[in-house]
Amino acid sequence: VSARRAAPPPSSGRGGTGARSSSGRAHAARIHAVVLAGGAGTRFWPLSRRARPKPLLRIDGGETLLGATLARARRVAGEERVWLVCGAEHARAMRRAAELPAERFLVEPRMRNTAAAVGLAAHRIMRSDPEAVLAVLPADHRVPDAGAFASALRRAARAASREPWLLTLGVRPTRPETGYGWIRLGAPLPGHAGLQRVARFVEKPPLDRARRYLRSGRYLWNAGIFVWAARTFLEELEAHAPAVARPLRPLATASRRGLARAVARAYARVPALPVDRAVLERSRRVGCLPVEFHWSDVGTWASLAEELGVGRGTSRVVGGEALLREADGNLVYADGRPVVLVGVEGLAVVDAGDALLVVDLKRSGEVREVVEALARRGRDDLL
Amino acid sequence: VSARRAAPPPSSGRGGTGARSSSGRAHAARIHAVVLAGGAGTRFWPLSRRARPKPLLRIDGGETLLGATLARARRVAGEERVWLVCGAEHARAMRRAAELPAERFLVEPRMRNTAAAVGLAAHRIMRSDPEAVLAVLPADHRVPDAGAFASALRRAARAASREPWLLTLGVRPTRPETGYGWIRLGAPLPGHAGLQRVARFVEKPPLDRARRYLRSGRYLWNAGIFVWAARTFLEELEAHAPAVARPLRPLATASRRGLARAVARAYARVPALPVDRAVLERSRRVGCLPVEFHWSDVGTWASLAEELGVGRGTSRVVGGEALLREADGNLVYADGRPVVLVGVEGLAVVDAGDALLVVDLKRSGEVREVVEALARRGRDDLL
Repeated sequence: VSARRAAPPPSSGRGGTGARSSSGRAHAARIHAVVLAGGAGTRFWPLSRRARPKPLLRIDGGETLLGATLARARRVAGEERVWLVCGAEHARAMRRAAELPAERFLVEPRMRNTAAAVGLAAHRIMRSDPEAVLAVLPADHRVPDAGAFASALRRAARAASREPWLLTLGVRPTRPETGYGWIRLGAPLPGHAGLQRVARFVEKPPLDRARRYLRSGRYLWNAGIFVWAARTFLEELEAHAPAVARPLRPLATASRRGLARAVARAYARVPALPVDRAVLERSRRVGCLPVEFHWSDVGTWASLAEELGVGRGTSRVVGGEALLREADGNLVYADGRPVVLVGVEGLAVVDAGDALLVVDLKRSGEVREVVEALARRGRDDLL
Repeated sequence: VSARRAAPPPSSGRGGTGARSSSGRAHAARIHAVVLAGGAGTRFWPLSRRARPKPLLRIDGGETLLGATLARARRVAGEERVWLVCGAEHARAMRRAAELPAERFLVEPRMRNTAAAVGLAAHRIMRSDPEAVLAVLPADHRVPDAGAFASALRRAARAASREPWLLTLGVRPTRPETGYGWIRLGAPLPGHAGLQRVARFVEKPPLDRARRYLRSGRYLWNAGIFVWAARTFLEELEAHAPAVARPLRPLATASRRGLARAVARAYARVPALPVDRAVLERSRRVGCLPVEFHWSDVGTWASLAEELGVGRGTSRVVGGEALLREADGNLVYADGRPVVLVGVEGLAVVDAGDALLVVDLKRSGEVREVVEALARRGRDDLL
């Protein structure tokens, strides 16, 4: 079976039945965790930088987001089948942070968004494990209940190994969040208890619509955590995003030694598209596993503050010393030098050593524009 | 004339008529400026420290408060008659900051408030200039119009050299300030156009009372800037605060070489009293020169912000680089590392290099308590 063949019709059965029967264990396809560590996370400036992207932040002073993601990945996939995709500019820092053998780092010569990243991983993993089921995990999310997370992924993987479904995790919403993508649930998937079709994806709805979604009970947050067979993904990529699939095809036959050069060639041509838009919103093989555990994409200082329990009457200090006098609901990142707050509320105060941010948590989405302003001023030293 | 003699009755005429007639220039007594640089200024933590008291702060990034005060002092008294009183713990820093000959630094072995400080200066200066008129200037006030200031002090000095008045500068109030002392004006001083008696001193009135004072037009702010003959002051100190005057008496006859030891002996016994309470509130020789120029004692971050023009729609950045995005009415002290504010208002953000303060300007009076808390925690490194 080669990724170069024409895509099967969307409603067709699974392509690789031969390989499955040869293994003799139809329901035991192995899960490979693909950790996507490509994002820049400019919204966490000044903690996040080009040289210290969001996955490497110790958001609660302990483990990095990447470290926690890798721990979840190992739990799901086992030590031997954890992969990490990252950009060349972060490769060194990622190698230092993640204890993985060199061959399981898949380095992108440039950022080409998630469709290419997952395509790269699918090709590489299929070379050694044609029946592989991928669990695609962004490196910068927060999921405190690693046990529930692993159970959900295993359940999705069982379905994805039996039938060619592209599965996404749907999180039960707790607020009318306008910063997330939402999923409208469709009919149950016959034969896969708990899984449902996806009737529709909705990108970042306005508040009134998000409120309706929340009330209706028929919408979930799209966590951006995916489970699918590598083969299924590549088939669907060919069918729905040939512009992405085509430059990646040579990866299917590249030798291990020739891989880097093949990737360089592919990435010179592959367009940058998110996997959602390239495949999920077009494919008819898309399903959703609703989950109940707590999940956050930790997108802004405000959402991070919420993750850390900051709220009315509660402040949180990470990484150093602070003295708070009548200063509630603040998130403080200290860095050696003590931080003193007096009479202020609802702020993020972030000392990054070489730069300092004070932002109203309600306005923390605007930090991204500050980074753009610094870039326009040529302050590369601060990016 | 010795300071050891009994105090004259409060209503008596000037004691030193002999000396005056001997000089033959009754109205030309020389003005000596006595700059009091004793305060700690804990309310400007973390910029002000034990080792860097408030007079040494560059509040607008330019000259220090002390530097500006010395410039005003020179304008009033001339280069040769500027004196500086400071505590032993600050003596080194003050000597480095103020270009004055060693003999015009009067170093207090310990802080004993202003009655003792002025007494020390009066004794020392009378040794070389018995007819001296003192202009007592706190080192940490702000008076932008140095010309108007000098004119006012010279006018007061003319009166104080002719008659034994203790004169204080009264500033026309512009708001119902509860942090200042107020003066109720009395009858005009006959023969001294513009000068008036002081009917009453009021320490830090509550807001409703301050509002009435402001409306009445009969109250001024007590600037804590004084003009009097050294001799008059010592007489009144003997009369009204003998507990302060007595330990200081030996200073009147101490040799220049023996001065330090005499001061040490005096300060071991002299009680700590402000000159207002020790003398002004008791003496009947007290007059006031109402002035119209802008004056501030720069007592808190909030009053400093006002001095620097911070207000609705206007922020001010001192000492470094900052990037403000929809952040109005803030006062920022940067220190090398850039400070970024997003969506916040009415804050003082102070980076002192080794400590960081974020305070609501409306609550900046509470910074003092933070310093006390640091002291209780034994954080001497931050004091």
